[in-house]
Amino acid sequence: MQSQFLDLPTSLQEIPPQWAHFCLNVDNFIAHELKLSIDNKTSIVGFSGGVDSTALILTLQFLAKRRGGRIVAAHMNHNLRKEAQEDSQWCEAFCKKLGIECFTRSEDIRNSAKINGIGIEEAGRDARYKFFQDIMRLVKGDFVMLGHHLDDLCEDVLMRLTRGTAWPGLAGMSGFDPHRTLVRPFLLTPKSELKSFLQDLKVGWREDASNQDDEWTRNRVRTTLLPLFLKENPKFRESIARMWKIGRIDSDYWNQMTSSPDQELSQKVLLSSHKALRLRLFKAALDNLGEGQALAKTLFKLDQAWCDKKNGAVFQFPGNKVATITASGVVFSHKH
Amino acid sequence: MQSQFLDLPTSLQEIPPQWAHFCLNVDNFIAHELKLSIDNKTSIVGFSGGVDSTALILTLQFLAKRRGGRIVAAHMNHNLRKEAQEDSQWCEAFCKKLGIECFTRSEDIRNSAKINGIGIEEAGRDARYKFFQDIMRLVKGDFVMLGHHLDDLCEDVLMRLTRGTAWPGLAGMSGFDPHRTLVRPFLLTPKSELKSFLQDLKVGWREDASNQDDEWTRNRVRTTLLPLFLKENPKFRESIARMWKIGRIDSDYWNQMTSSPDQELSQKVLLSSHKALRLRLFKAALDNLGEGQALAKTLFKLDQAWCDKKNGAVFQFPGNKVATITASGVVFSHKH
Repeated sequence: MQSQFLDLPTSLQEIPPQWAHFCLNVDNFIAHELKLSIDNKTSIVGFSGGVDSTALILTLQFLAKRRGGRIVAAHMNHNLRKEAQEDSQWCEAFCKKLGIECFTRSEDIRNSAKINGIGIEEAGRDARYKFFQDIMRLVKGDFVMLGHHLDDLCEDVLMRLTRGTAWPGLAGMSGFDPHRTLVRPFLLTPKSELKSFLQDLKVGWREDASNQDDEWTRNRVRTTLLPLFLKENPKFRESIARMWKIGRIDSDYWNQMTSSPDQELSQKVLLSSHKALRLRLFKAALDNLGEGQALAKTLFKLDQAWCDKKNGAVFQFPGNKVATITASGVVFSHKH
Repeated sequence: MQSQFLDLPTSLQEIPPQWAHFCLNVDNFIAHELKLSIDNKTSIVGFSGGVDSTALILTLQFLAKRRGGRIVAAHMNHNLRKEAQEDSQWCEAFCKKLGIECFTRSEDIRNSAKINGIGIEEAGRDARYKFFQDIMRLVKGDFVMLGHHLDDLCEDVLMRLTRGTAWPGLAGMSGFDPHRTLVRPFLLTPKSELKSFLQDLKVGWREDASNQDDEWTRNRVRTTLLPLFLKENPKFRESIARMWKIGRIDSDYWNQMTSSPDQELSQKVLLSSHKALRLRLFKAALDNLGEGQALAKTLFKLDQAWCDKKNGAVFQFPGNKVATITASGVVFSHKH
């Protein structure tokens, strides 16, 4: 099996300038757009063996050689398709050739989904993230690196639009999630470029058949909706990338404007805040109480009731949270 | 021709409570969401004879009878389809029966499009809006009322997404455009409801065959994209309506934050502003100089150059506008 990896390049110096430039663009995205330093850090790469994560582990290994830092692969065998075992062997061999330590875990995802009464996609994601966090602790890692790219971002935005996600959430997944220390270095890179990168360097990858499955919403978005948008505007991906950047800026803005939210928002604060800010203050105060997504519809109702001075009115939110309008402001708490 | 209008209801008291309620909801939308008073005002209704504008003129006539106010119809014959002449006659007869003054103008839109080197859709819109403004002056009107509904809003959002419109523009057309005094009372009402309204009241309308034409982007969005989103989420229209509301709130917020923009943005203002605000300040200062849409991409570059203190750098924007970075801030002007 290892023979196919004979020609694997191991440093930026060994690859054509175009692709060295590509890697440095990714480096630039991490440093300037995500504002992260990966120098001398330990990064765990979620490595399935598909195009995305193969391109990612190779790029990050090149960058680590240049800047210092350690790359560790984490490969999860979901046992969902007949090639699963071969995929795992391929990933291990690939890492061995590159000199990257590879951790593998095998789980019966179909069974976990059944036991937990959740979908297979969700069960797979849960198991994967748990595995990544376990490896993070084991190797004292700094970041979990994921292969999500611009096409994934486009799908994500379309799915959020379908569900009616408010702004700035509508702009799509973050490039850096500080809670789970997740990083997505390829988030503004089109998938086609990842493919060209591997093809030009004569690096293989494993095809994931489930990606072509029309059963899941995400795949319907991928195979039907996204191509229609690309037909209307061949530069649709760039549009989404631009929208994502504005979304990150606005997200940062609203986070700053609602930082350290109290359990109680005083009349003084609320009276001096525009409705746009009040809605985000309510959301931040609720988020601060723990899990459970506040619905925009209920936030609107809460604000209207506050405008109408309906003292004593109580609004319920997911996660056992309530907001109560009082004479001195709006109080957020857990239901007793 | 008039015989078909024998049963036209002429006031809210004559229609079933469900539909009286529907009309009062529209009244409520105009008063509370758009914050407009139409009492004793003169409203020009753009009246094509299609479902949307027929439902609109009827609703507004009911409301005007209740609240005081004058309704005037403005019917534009585009001469684009063979039934155009019949449509005009139908509209005039409909208005006569309701006691509404109807102004009609006939133009060869295909020819104007050719002469001006623009698309037929654009030529039609230009001629229509010019006609509406002429009637506004003639009857000393206060508002131009348009029949755009929630399905139109959904299409508009999808088209803006396709083009990569930034937030809050992405949330779709406004319900009230103060520059052209345009009002869209049905903007959060689904088209199906307008149809049911007319059917239940036994009021006819004219079918517009061009709406089924697949040649235009808007019609592709209508017949292909929108049904796919509705398949994923049958409540997609409500999601868009919610997004629109948040968009209007954010739009008002950023307008307040960037009101009365100067020709020069000082270092003091810029240094104390978050990037999210700076980008909107730049845009407001440019908009203030007249026509021409600033591209988000160039605004990003301008901000980056300002961050990097590139004094002397000049950025060009559509409409012959330039932004220059100086030691004391950013100056906006027309190119000499």
